[in-house]
Amino acid sequence: MLTKKGLKEFCADARENYLPHISIDCVVFGFHEGIMKVLVLKVQNEDEWYLPGGFMLKNEPIEKAANRILKERTTLDKIFLQQFHVFGDPERSKEHFDMYKDMLPAKENWFANRFLTIGYYALVDFFETSPNPDQFAESCQWRGLDDLPDFKLDHALILKTALDTLRLQLNYQPIGYNLMPKEFTMPELQKLYEAILDKKLDRRNFQRRMLGFGILTRSDEPRKGGAHKAPYLYSFDLENYEAALREGFKGGW
Amino acid sequence: MLTKKGLKEFCADARENYLPHISIDCVVFGFHEGIMKVLVLKVQNEDEWYLPGGFMLKNEPIEKAANRILKERTTLDKIFLQQFHVFGDPERSKEHFDMYKDMLPAKENWFANRFLTIGYYALVDFFETSPNPDQFAESCQWRGLDDLPDFKLDHALILKTALDTLRLQLNYQPIGYNLMPKEFTMPELQKLYEAILDKKLDRRNFQRRMLGFGILTRSDEPRKGGAHKAPYLYSFDLENYEAALREGFKGGW
Repeated sequence: MLTKKGLKEFCADARENYLPHISIDCVVFGFHEGIMKVLVLKVQNEDEWYLPGGFMLKNEPIEKAANRILKERTTLDKIFLQQFHVFGDPERSKEHFDMYKDMLPAKENWFANRFLTIGYYALVDFFETSPNPDQFAESCQWRGLDDLPDFKLDHALILKTALDTLRLQLNYQPIGYNLMPKEFTMPELQKLYEAILDKKLDRRNFQRRMLGFGILTRSDEPRKGGAHKAPYLYSFDLENYEAALREGFKGGW
Repeated sequence: MLTKKGLKEFCADARENYLPHISIDCVVFGFHEGIMKVLVLKVQNEDEWYLPGGFMLKNEPIEKAANRILKERTTLDKIFLQQFHVFGDPERSKEHFDMYKDMLPAKENWFANRFLTIGYYALVDFFETSPNPDQFAESCQWRGLDDLPDFKLDHALILKTALDTLRLQLNYQPIGYNLMPKEFTMPELQKLYEAILDKKLDRRNFQRRMLGFGILTRSDEPRKGGAHKAPYLYSFDLENYEAALREGFKGGW
């Protein structure tokens, strides 16, 4: 929560620079070796948790705004963010309205406005990122999906909707290019799907289905070393992978 | 295009009642017996074509706004509209800006603002609807996808994005409950998919895949009358259909 002075400064700056009524919130899922997490911000000195979000500059394209906001709030840069839903319940920002309504007259008060928020999501390797909080937050953390804090506003709904979207996306688009090593075994890829879906999958069905999509190339040589029965190695066929991203899987209609 | 007087009245009303910077546009696809069309508006006395769209009341939920706008502009009521994308290029409403900029000072001029537009789409039986234009439009028409007018603003992009979304949706969600009669043959259902995809599909693959989704119930009795080899009749299994709408098709992960 901002102090009265902080609020006044923030509102003056916001009215000058940002589009009113519109915000952006980012759901960044992180995966590494079978574990799924999500990036959350904790506000200074309070037990208030948010997804990383912010406002759009008056002349900024939305995609650019989403990337800038994520970078400003968490230092994460060059993340591929996908728009997934606009949240527009007229009461969704009421908590902020109530929090600040006595500190500043409505005319000057940025938070006296209703805000629609545009949700963006991304899936990254959390092992390769080092998120840091901005001046408004005390910490920026990766939290497991089974260990989420109580979010402010409708951020729990935004997270749930992003997760549902990601799970649905597994049915029609490839995933994992930026999460898997160049070569990987089928069980390693299966772990990614299992982490997103939060359930065990049948090994044989998984392999049959994945191979059916035609986005994997099998290496001639199995992985070296160790095991008696060395597993086959796969890599993504980038041309087919990109085509499937655009058009959905082959074996579609 | 509005007259100066019309513009002044419209802007005064808009500033009083609507959220600035945000609009909604609706892409209504119509299907009937193998033919796909889309609903378009032609502005009075001009060769200007738009998708049906409008603005959101200051305290209105987005879904409600989308339905109200479609009803006001075309008289179509109780249509299930799905949100699919926000279009936020800072230049997307420049055509309206230029059209009206000399008629009214920027401070009073609603169209001096940048607008993000939230796209909604629907798929209905055009045979069962009778769209009519509002006061701002001269006509409201169903146009074939191969016979589209030149749209103003970015409405061609909005339509294309809606069509891509609908086509992708065929890969992971059922479609057609409100378009097919209670009982239908497999070739009749195939026609719907072929119209949306604008391509011929293999009869056997189509049948195998559709049956695999587990959303169809086959009637014990084939269709009566006429043909030597009467075709089987199917209906949607509503419970499985609804589940697949929520979770994606079985045979997903």
